[in-house]
Amino acid sequence: MNMQTIAQMSCNPAMGGIAKGQIVREIDALGGYSGIVTDKSMIQFRMLNRSKGPAMWSPRAQNDRMLFAATWREMLEQTPNVDFYQDMVNSLVIQDGKACGVVTGLGHTIHAKAVVVTSGTFLNGVIHIGEKRFGGGRVAEKAATGITEQLVSLGFESDRLKTGTPPRIDGRSLDYTKMEEQKGDEDIIGFSYLDVPKPTRQKSCWITYTNSTVHDILKTGFDRSPMYTGRIEGVGPRYCPSIEDKINRFAERERHQLFIEPEGWNTVEIYVNGFSTSLPEEVQYAALRQVPGFEQVRIFRPGYAIEYDYFPPTQLRHSLETKAIDNLFFAGQVNGTTGYEEAACQGLMAGINAHQKTRQLEPLILKRSEAYIGVLIDDLISKGTEEPYRMFTSRAEFRTLLRQDNADLRLTEMSYRLGLASQERMERTIQKKNGVDEIKNLLQSFSLEPEESLDYLVTKNSAPLTQKQRAGQVLLRPGIDLQSMSKAIPRLGEEVKTYSPDMLEQAEIQVKYDVYIEKEKDLVQKMAQLEDLLIPDNFNYDRVSSLSNEALQKFKKIKPRTLGQASRISGVNPSDVQILMVFMGR
Amino acid sequence: MNMQTIAQMSCNPAMGGIAKGQIVREIDALGGYSGIVTDKSMIQFRMLNRSKGPAMWSPRAQNDRMLFAATWREMLEQTPNVDFYQDMVNSLVIQDGKACGVVTGLGHTIHAKAVVVTSGTFLNGVIHIGEKRFGGGRVAEKAATGITEQLVSLGFESDRLKTGTPPRIDGRSLDYTKMEEQKGDEDIIGFSYLDVPKPTRQKSCWITYTNSTVHDILKTGFDRSPMYTGRIEGVGPRYCPSIEDKINRFAERERHQLFIEPEGWNTVEIYVNGFSTSLPEEVQYAALRQVPGFEQVRIFRPGYAIEYDYFPPTQLRHSLETKAIDNLFFAGQVNGTTGYEEAACQGLMAGINAHQKTRQLEPLILKRSEAYIGVLIDDLISKGTEEPYRMFTSRAEFRTLLRQDNADLRLTEMSYRLGLASQERMERTIQKKNGVDEIKNLLQSFSLEPEESLDYLVTKNSAPLTQKQRAGQVLLRPGIDLQSMSKAIPRLGEEVKTYSPDMLEQAEIQVKYDVYIEKEKDLVQKMAQLEDLLIPDNFNYDRVSSLSNEALQKFKKIKPRTLGQASRISGVNPSDVQILMVFMGR
Repeated sequence: MNMQTIAQMSCNPAMGGIAKGQIVREIDALGGYSGIVTDKSMIQFRMLNRSKGPAMWSPRAQNDRMLFAATWREMLEQTPNVDFYQDMVNSLVIQDGKACGVVTGLGHTIHAKAVVVTSGTFLNGVIHIGEKRFGGGRVAEKAATGITEQLVSLGFESDRLKTGTPPRIDGRSLDYTKMEEQKGDEDIIGFSYLDVPKPTRQKSCWITYTNSTVHDILKTGFDRSPMYTGRIEGVGPRYCPSIEDKINRFAERERHQLFIEPEGWNTVEIYVNGFSTSLPEEVQYAALRQVPGFEQVRIFRPGYAIEYDYFPPTQLRHSLETKAIDNLFFAGQVNGTTGYEEAACQGLMAGINAHQKTRQLEPLILKRSEAYIGVLIDDLISKGTEEPYRMFTSRAEFRTLLRQDNADLRLTEMSYRLGLASQERMERTIQKKNGVDEIKNLLQSFSLEPEESLDYLVTKNSAPLTQKQRAGQVLLRPGIDLQSMSKAIPRLGEEVKTYSPDMLEQAEIQVKYDVYIEKEKDLVQKMAQLEDLLIPDNFNYDRVSSLSNEALQKFKKIKPRTLGQASRISGVNPSDVQILMVFMGR
Repeated sequence: MNMQTIAQMSCNPAMGGIAKGQIVREIDALGGYSGIVTDKSMIQFRMLNRSKGPAMWSPRAQNDRMLFAATWREMLEQTPNVDFYQDMVNSLVIQDGKACGVVTGLGHTIHAKAVVVTSGTFLNGVIHIGEKRFGGGRVAEKAATGITEQLVSLGFESDRLKTGTPPRIDGRSLDYTKMEEQKGDEDIIGFSYLDVPKPTRQKSCWITYTNSTVHDILKTGFDRSPMYTGRIEGVGPRYCPSIEDKINRFAERERHQLFIEPEGWNTVEIYVNGFSTSLPEEVQYAALRQVPGFEQVRIFRPGYAIEYDYFPPTQLRHSLETKAIDNLFFAGQVNGTTGYEEAACQGLMAGINAHQKTRQLEPLILKRSEAYIGVLIDDLISKGTEEPYRMFTSRAEFRTLLRQDNADLRLTEMSYRLGLASQERMERTIQKKNGVDEIKNLLQSFSLEPEESLDYLVTKNSAPLTQKQRAGQVLLRPGIDLQSMSKAIPRLGEEVKTYSPDMLEQAEIQVKYDVYIEKEKDLVQKMAQLEDLLIPDNFNYDRVSSLSNEALQKFKKIKPRTLGQASRISGVNPSDVQILMVFMGR
């Protein structure tokens, strides 16, 4: 619709975070650009959850909003075979049950072998601020129209969702002495497995809190809130709620945390993360002024809620192709998700699979044991979603396997085989894998003498060795890590000095968490047996008389691809799966 | 309406050019930011008309569109007391004939001591592409509504104007070997009188031409052209016509020049300057493909025409305050002008005068002999305009005085006195003035010997000196310039070596063109006598019985401020001015 808003961050100027950071790493491992762009445009980086196990480590960046969009545009322009055309699509060309093009507002028909719908919050978007309501895909941008009506007439189900955004404010009006500073990490790990230059300085975020006065003022607007007067029909994101939702649902809490996020290197604009609201603007303003540090706040534009159309994602195949129309793919908020990372990985997968489809090649379908992306898509397709879906580590059964540190080892090779991940990326992955194997072998063969390890173990409050022991064995002890150990024991340090930090870290994680990892791999194996049992596309569930009523309905609606997927549908019992298995002759 | 489109270049990514470059220099001399931003975001610089006299020299820059907007936003954010608020103004608060605020789309009333309307092409904007028509202030941006209707109800006259823009295309699809390269100057002079770092490399533009095949194809669309089917009512810019206008009005010309302008450092997007059009898109495309180098062209978005509301500027005072409503100022396209530079200088003057008004201070009104800005505003106020007004050097009677090289000497002091131009800027101007005076004195006292000047004069094909002669005298000869002379004659070179290049150039221009400059100063003197004769605001022209009918009507409508202005109104004879002068007791 507007080439100047390519890669606009509609919401906060940040990428990654818990579970989401893992997704960005996976996108990068597959050859997508999200990680590279984030690295190039970041103003702050933090690895969250460092104090927990490596399965919980999650990279997060604060970005320069303008630089993020500019870098994306630049990278897209430099990508061969990517063309651009600015216009609104207002209908799809569908012939013989196949998508074969789009028709634009200016009246052009653009023919295509496949179409990916990535409409974000734009489809019939309606913006709410207090009692005001107007059409728009984002504030100051037009809504998109036409596609929902056409798809519904073709038998698609559509529904409404809602999301929101906080006020943008003037950083010059804040008193930072009343807030806590949140600095970036000293070492920037970043998102991309490629070498992307990282910034040499960082900008801080700030933390402040609401209080009961703020809450009381906000409540005075509830009678004019589009949320509570029934004006908004769409369901909002449970895990990224508006401030009015928070004080409503968690009435016992006396304060909520607010993250004060700068919008870029050279702007005074500030994003008030945690204060998403669609209350009347004067209420937003009066309440904000009671937040410590915000006494003199000036607002650039108020927070608002936006309602938009989505298509419940049970209407999709695992390739993100719609079941009803061939060669038509959906990705992002149109599938009921929320979040840049969730949207980005769907865009990438839909793009890959649209390409595969046009070449009559098999789709790339990531398993739940292979990637958060696999979990996300499988959740959407199998369970659907009735509120904006966001990723959590808890959604992944195999999260010990799906770490941010090994997305390249998990995914780069399959993407390289498709022709997506570059030669350079593949070579780096092989190099890393080989290096890690060498280090692991070394740790199994290299023995530490009691003498040389004594001082080190004492400083780490770990028992001295009574006889020589393999380094890999010592590494299993709590509190012991490879970096400090090879620093303290020169003979070991000498052996590992040629390996890069990420190889050392990877080897250490694999050694230290080996038991958990192997346990999960076993589980994956068992589940995989169900995954391998394909259910034919045209399987007639009505013939399976002993299924529970709920399972029968869900199976017919969702059309699971495998027994594994069937087993994960909410409301389906193990007995239903067994009946199906028997019926299929297994 | 949208903080992310602050300082969007709606049309081509370039600043300056003939007469317009002078305006940017004047804006800079007054302390406006246009020159600084242009210098910081330029990708190419050229001083046009170098082969002509210095009155014709005109700086012109090609800009990075995104960097231009980002730099503007950054500079504005860093300006104390400039606040921002994103919302659409849809009416003005007017009390007792005074503007005292605005009401926004979100329903806010913002109180103000003065209001400046700078609505560009947004007021009731309608976009045309062939037979398609839709509302918009720019393509993909909403139109603004409400203000015209309110002002008309208050007695303002409004009318429609039209402007247009060419297609944006994919530079990767062009064959540059079929075009002429146009490089930037080796030395970048730039726009600002302050020291702004200039780029160390530049990007080239390219030149190609239409041909009769292109014209024939364009003509096939004329029956669907909004221009020729009466669908567009507004008058378009005569001197920046659409390509269809050009082939219509100059039917004898077999080709028209097209400037192929890159949109920035890191984008493939290209602006096809000279190909503004509102013909149907398929006609634009078919015709473009016949342009040499465009055989494989891919369009990002088509050209279009836009119609918008303006208020004939005879309704304004010289301060740009409206005559009907106190404290209400208009600037830019709303006054019927076209061009960034014309708009920018009005914005600056309206801003200055809004400030002056709120402090009960005299407005800053630049004379026609002081600045192109003075010519522009006086033309608008005195003559009005029925088509988009753009600046030309021919509009200025005193263009020998209004050079791009001396805008600082002409204007900085008056701006400094108002508190606008900075101390640094004033000091640099004084320094330059003093340096120039010293050089001029030197040139009058320093005598060249026939011996030491012989070789130099021979190489310049100038007659040898028969006796010693003052350097200033020799400088008057054609073909002689101060730079080469002081290089060739070491004794002179030694004397001037401490002066900066712009001081030397300024002194040379003042010496070489002294006769013309003095002649124009005399003329200014004579005209000034009329300018000094103020006509009272409430002067009753009906009592002056012997005025011509046309003069009477024009005077009553335009309410000239001075006899000078009265004398320049089209249709007013010298006798009318004399009658007025007599009646006023002079």
